[in-house]
Amino acid sequence: MSIRPDTPLLDQVKTPADLRAFKRGDLSALAEELRQEMISAVSVTGGHFGAGLGVVELTVALHYVFNTPQDKLIWDVGHQAYPHKIITGRREEIRTIRQQGGLSPFTKRSESEYDPFGAGHSSTSISAALGMAVASKMSDRPDKAIAVIGDGAMSAGMAYEAMNNAEQAGNRLVVILNDNDMSIAPAVGAMSAYLAKILSSHQFLSLRDIGKKLISKLPRSLANTARRAEEYARGIATGGTLFDELGFYYVGPIDGHNMDHMLPILENVRDAQDGPILVHVVTEKGRGHPFEEPHGEKYHAVPKFDLVTKERQKSKPAAPSYTEVFADELIKQAGKDEKILAITAAMPSGTGLDKFEKAFPDRTFDVGIAEQHAVTFAAGLATDGYKPFVAIYSTFLQRAYDQIVHDVAIQNLPVRFAIDRAGLVGADGPTHAGSFDVTYLASLPNMVVMAAADEADLKHMIATAASIDDKPSAVRYPRGAGVGCELPDEGTVLEIGKGRIIRKGSKVAILSLGARLQEALKAADDLESRGLSVTVADARFAKPIDDALIRDLAVSHDLLLSIEEGSIGGFGAHVLDYLADDGILDGPLKVRTLKLPDTFQDHGNPDDMYAAAGLDAAGIVAAILKALGKNDVGQSASA
Amino acid sequence: MSIRPDTPLLDQVKTPADLRAFKRGDLSALAEELRQEMISAVSVTGGHFGAGLGVVELTVALHYVFNTPQDKLIWDVGHQAYPHKIITGRREEIRTIRQQGGLSPFTKRSESEYDPFGAGHSSTSISAALGMAVASKMSDRPDKAIAVIGDGAMSAGMAYEAMNNAEQAGNRLVVILNDNDMSIAPAVGAMSAYLAKILSSHQFLSLRDIGKKLISKLPRSLANTARRAEEYARGIATGGTLFDELGFYYVGPIDGHNMDHMLPILENVRDAQDGPILVHVVTEKGRGHPFEEPHGEKYHAVPKFDLVTKERQKSKPAAPSYTEVFADELIKQAGKDEKILAITAAMPSGTGLDKFEKAFPDRTFDVGIAEQHAVTFAAGLATDGYKPFVAIYSTFLQRAYDQIVHDVAIQNLPVRFAIDRAGLVGADGPTHAGSFDVTYLASLPNMVVMAAADEADLKHMIATAASIDDKPSAVRYPRGAGVGCELPDEGTVLEIGKGRIIRKGSKVAILSLGARLQEALKAADDLESRGLSVTVADARFAKPIDDALIRDLAVSHDLLLSIEEGSIGGFGAHVLDYLADDGILDGPLKVRTLKLPDTFQDHGNPDDMYAAAGLDAAGIVAAILKALGKNDVGQSASA
Repeated sequence: MSIRPDTPLLDQVKTPADLRAFKRGDLSALAEELRQEMISAVSVTGGHFGAGLGVVELTVALHYVFNTPQDKLIWDVGHQAYPHKIITGRREEIRTIRQQGGLSPFTKRSESEYDPFGAGHSSTSISAALGMAVASKMSDRPDKAIAVIGDGAMSAGMAYEAMNNAEQAGNRLVVILNDNDMSIAPAVGAMSAYLAKILSSHQFLSLRDIGKKLISKLPRSLANTARRAEEYARGIATGGTLFDELGFYYVGPIDGHNMDHMLPILENVRDAQDGPILVHVVTEKGRGHPFEEPHGEKYHAVPKFDLVTKERQKSKPAAPSYTEVFADELIKQAGKDEKILAITAAMPSGTGLDKFEKAFPDRTFDVGIAEQHAVTFAAGLATDGYKPFVAIYSTFLQRAYDQIVHDVAIQNLPVRFAIDRAGLVGADGPTHAGSFDVTYLASLPNMVVMAAADEADLKHMIATAASIDDKPSAVRYPRGAGVGCELPDEGTVLEIGKGRIIRKGSKVAILSLGARLQEALKAADDLESRGLSVTVADARFAKPIDDALIRDLAVSHDLLLSIEEGSIGGFGAHVLDYLADDGILDGPLKVRTLKLPDTFQDHGNPDDMYAAAGLDAAGIVAAILKALGKNDVGQSASA
Repeated sequence: MSIRPDTPLLDQVKTPADLRAFKRGDLSALAEELRQEMISAVSVTGGHFGAGLGVVELTVALHYVFNTPQDKLIWDVGHQAYPHKIITGRREEIRTIRQQGGLSPFTKRSESEYDPFGAGHSSTSISAALGMAVASKMSDRPDKAIAVIGDGAMSAGMAYEAMNNAEQAGNRLVVILNDNDMSIAPAVGAMSAYLAKILSSHQFLSLRDIGKKLISKLPRSLANTARRAEEYARGIATGGTLFDELGFYYVGPIDGHNMDHMLPILENVRDAQDGPILVHVVTEKGRGHPFEEPHGEKYHAVPKFDLVTKERQKSKPAAPSYTEVFADELIKQAGKDEKILAITAAMPSGTGLDKFEKAFPDRTFDVGIAEQHAVTFAAGLATDGYKPFVAIYSTFLQRAYDQIVHDVAIQNLPVRFAIDRAGLVGADGPTHAGSFDVTYLASLPNMVVMAAADEADLKHMIATAASIDDKPSAVRYPRGAGVGCELPDEGTVLEIGKGRIIRKGSKVAILSLGARLQEALKAADDLESRGLSVTVADARFAKPIDDALIRDLAVSHDLLLSIEEGSIGGFGAHVLDYLADDGILDGPLKVRTLKLPDTFQDHGNPDDMYAAAGLDAAGIVAAILKALGKNDVGQSASA
C-alpha cells in the first residue's frame, strides 16, 4: 500500500529557487520530508534506492548553496539523483521513473535544465564538470561546476585522469566525494582503504575547524587579515594528502547528514578564490530506509514495496536467470579445472560471481570499478596458463575495448568474457543497453563470439569457453530470466563455429543469433499458418560464423533473414559479408538482416522495446512478408 | 655511414644469463657499449630512440638483478625496449627492426620468451604485471613481475586502476617508475607536477640511505635486529606519499644512470618480503644521443642517420602530410570561430596540434595520456556551446570508446573527432593500426563519420565537422603524406551524407571510402584497358551513407565493389545492409566488399601491407575479375 507522506515544507519547493528562500533552520526538516517522499515514490515504482537516500541532505545543501542551474551540478551515476529530481520540478513525474515514457532512472539532459550531464556509467562526472568549468572560465562567467562522485567511482581510471587535469578549471571546479564505502558492492582497493584510514584517524571537522581551515580560500581581502590563522588552519588538515598531491585543496571529512556542518563549508567552497577543491563528505547509503534488515548491496535498487507491511513485491520468474545459470555452470567448470578464475569489476552480485566467490574465494577477483584493468589483468593471468573469466555487462565492457583489442586479441590470449545484459535491458535505458558488443568484438581477429539462445545453451557456451585454450572467447546473454528450458547438469563443449537447425522448412530461413530464437519460432508458427514453410536455425556463433550452414540455408530457401539483439555491423553484417564474397548473393536469393534500430531507445519494458525495434515475432513476420512482396499482412496469428 | 662500435663486453652477452656472470664493476662499461650499439643500430634502421637511450643502465641493472625470463620484465610501451632486445638474444635482428619480417618496434610475445607481454599502447604494464604476479603467487612460485613505466604513462587511468589493486600481488610485484619527464611530449598534469616536486625537494638517495630505507623490507630475521634503524629510515622517506597512499612501498628517487645506486636498491627490492614496491628512477631521455641539439620530443623516434656526419636522412614527401593539412585547416576554422577548441592526449606534435597551440595557446588542451578524460571533457565543453576537436589517433581512440558511446553519442553532443593514423600505419605494426574506427563509430546512432580520400577533402571535412552543431562527427585520415593534389585555401562545407562520382563508367562501380581512392582509379585504368567500363565514386561518408548514390550505382552496373581501409563491420557492412534491406540485392547485382583481412598484420611497408590485404590496384582488379568470372587475370596494366 502506498502512503503519501505529509510534506508541508517540500510542498513549497517547485524549483531550487524556492528552496533558497528557506531559513537554514528549516532545511533539516525539509530534507527529512524529501526522504519520506522518495521512499513513498520508490515504494510505487521500485528502482535505485540506497544511493538517493544517502544524499538527501547533501542534495538540499548543494541546491541551497549553489545557484543551480547556472552552477552545474553533476551527479556521478545518476541513480543517486532521485532526491535531486524531486526538488528540480519533477516531483510528480518521479512516480513514473523507469517506466516507458516516464522519467529516466539517471540524470538526462533532455529531461531538465538541472541535469547538465547524463550519467548511467560511473566515474564520468569530474571530466564532464571540468569541461563545463573550463567553458565557464573561458566565457568569463562565475558559474561553478560541482561533481558529486562516490568513493567506489573513484576507483575508475577516468576519475583519476580527470583529477590529474583539474587545475585547468581554477576555482570553478568543486568535487564532492560522497564516501559511503558502498558503491554497489563494498568498495575495494587502495583508494577505499585510504579513505577508511582518513575516517578512522580523524574526527569530523568541527564548525570552528571549518572556519579556520577554509579561511585561506576566502576572497583575498578577507584572507590577508587572517594569514596567521590560515597557517594554523593548514596544520589541522586532517588527511587528504593524496588529493592534495593531485592538485586539489582537500576539505573533510564532513558529516553528510549534518546541515550545520555542510552549509558553512559549502558556502566557503563556493566563495573560494583558489581551486580546485575536493570536499570529502561521509554519508550512509540507504539512510532511513524502511526495512528491518541492515542495508547493503541489495538496497542499491529495490522492487516495489508496501509502505505499511514493508513487504517487497516478489517477481516470480518462470525460470532461473541467465546470471544464475552462468554462475552455476562456471562453478561446475571451476570444480573440474583449478586454473579457472573469475574477475568482476565491482559487480559481484549483478554478475553472479558472489556465488562463485563463496565456492572459490581465492579464485575470485573484484578489482573495483576498473574495467580496463580487469581485462589486462586477465590477460596477464592468461599468459601463465590460468583461465580467467571476465564477467562484465555488455555496456560496461565498452570501457575496456582497447584492452580487449590490444592486450587480448592482438596477443591471442585465451581470456574468456562473460557478457551479461547483452541486448536491450529495459528500465535502465540506453546507457545500459548492451547493443554493440557483437559489433565491436566480432570485428576483431582471433575472437570467438557466442550468443546464448536460452539458458541451456548458455551452459554449453560457458563449458565451450572454458575449453578454448588458444584464443580469446566471449559469451553474451540477456538480462533476466531464461526461457525455462530443461537444464543439463553440466554444459557440453560445442563445436566452434557451428550453428544448429531447430526447425526445418523450405521457403524462408530465419537465422537467429541469441535470445530472439523464441520469437523466431513464434514467427515461424505464424508464417506456417499462412502457408509459408519456415526453417529456423540458431547460429550460436557470431564469430566464426557457420559458413556451411549459411550457405545451405541460402541455396535452399527463397529468403534468408538474420536476427540479433545488437547493432548494425554485427552478426548480420558478417552473414551478408560471407554471402556477398562467396557470390551467393549474385543470384536471386533475398536477404534481410534484423537488428537494433539506429537510435538510442529510451527506457521501457524490454518486450515493448523489442517490438518497437521490429525484433519480436510480429516484426519478423512483417519483415518476411514485406520481403516476399506480400504486403497485406492481414491478421497475424502471433498478434 | 654506419659504424659498428667496438664492444668487447657486449660481445660476451648472448642472453641475460651471460650478463649475470659479469663483475659489478664492469656493468657501467657494458651499459655504455650497449648504448653505442643501440645508436649504431638505429642509425641504420631509424626508429624509437630517446626512450631506449634513457634506460640503457636500467636495462642492464634489471637483467643483472632479476632472474629473467622466470622473473617477468614488462616494458610499458615497448619502444623503450631496444636495449632489452639487444641483450636478450636479438642483437643482430635489431638491425631489422620496423622492417617487414624484422623485429617489432615494441615488445612482442611471439618474438622472445623475454617479452612476456606486448605493449604498443601506453600504461598497460602494471595491470599485466599484476596478473603475472598473482599467477606466480597462486602457483606458489617465487617469480616476480617487474613493470617499467614512464611518468607520462602514469597519467593514464588504467595505470591508476592497476595501482589501486596492486596489493593482491604481495611482494611479487615491482613497479619501476621511469621518470624522464618526457613520455612523448613533456608530461602534463598533477602527477607530473607531483613527481617534479619530489625531485626538486630531495637529493638522490645515498648508498647509506638506501640501506636504511630498505631494511624493513628485508627478510624478517634480518629486519628484526634493525627495527630501530628502520624507524629512522622511515623518517628519511623522501616523498612518494601518493604512492604510499595507494598501497605501495615507495623507494626513491634514484639516479637511473648510476649502477652503484641502482644495484643495491634493486637487490633489496628483489629480496623484500613485503610489497608491492614502487622504485622511482630518474633518467634522461635520449641520453648519449649523437646529435648536437638538445634532445626533445623529436628524438622520440628518428629517421636513419649517418654516424659520422650525424646527418639525418630526410624523407622528401611529395605532398604535405594529412597531419599538417588537418592542423592548417583547423587553424583556419578557429580563426573564424572562437568557439573552436583543440584537445590532444599527449600527442601535440603527432596530431599537428603543436602548430594549433602556437596560434591559439588558450584554446589548446593537452590532457596527458588520458583519452577517456579527453573525450568526456570535450563533451562537457560541448554542453556549453564550445566546439571541441578531439585529435586522437584511431588506435588510441579505442581507449575512449565507452566515453564516445555514453557521453557523446547518447547525449548527441557535437564533439568533433579528428582521427589520424586511420588504416594501416606500417612500421609500428598491429598495435598502432587504425583498423576498427569506422566499425566502432558508424554503428553508433547520431554519429557522422567521414573519411578523407585526399588532403583537399580532409580540408573540406574539417570545415564540415566545424559546421555540424547538432551531433557528433568524426573525420578519419591516413598516416603520412597526402596525394599531392591542389589544396584550396580553405575547406568548403560538404553536404552531409553525400558522396561524389569521380569517374563515370557502366559495367563495374567501385565505391571507395577514404584514401584507397587512388588505387581504385588505377584499378579502373587497368580494367578499362581490358575493356571493362568502370565508375569510381568516393563515398566520403561512412555514416550516413549516401543511399541515393549507392542505389544509382547498384541499378546501373553489373558489379558494385566497395573498398575501405578498415575492418569488417564498417563501411562495406553499411552498404550491404542498405542494399539488402532495400531489396536491391534481391536481383542479379553482384556486390563485393574489400576491407582489411581478419588477421592482425605484422608491421611492414604500408604499400606492401595493403597489397597483401588485396587493397591495392592489383587486388581490386583481381577481385573484380574474379567476381565477373574472369579468373584468367593475365597481365595487369597496373602491375
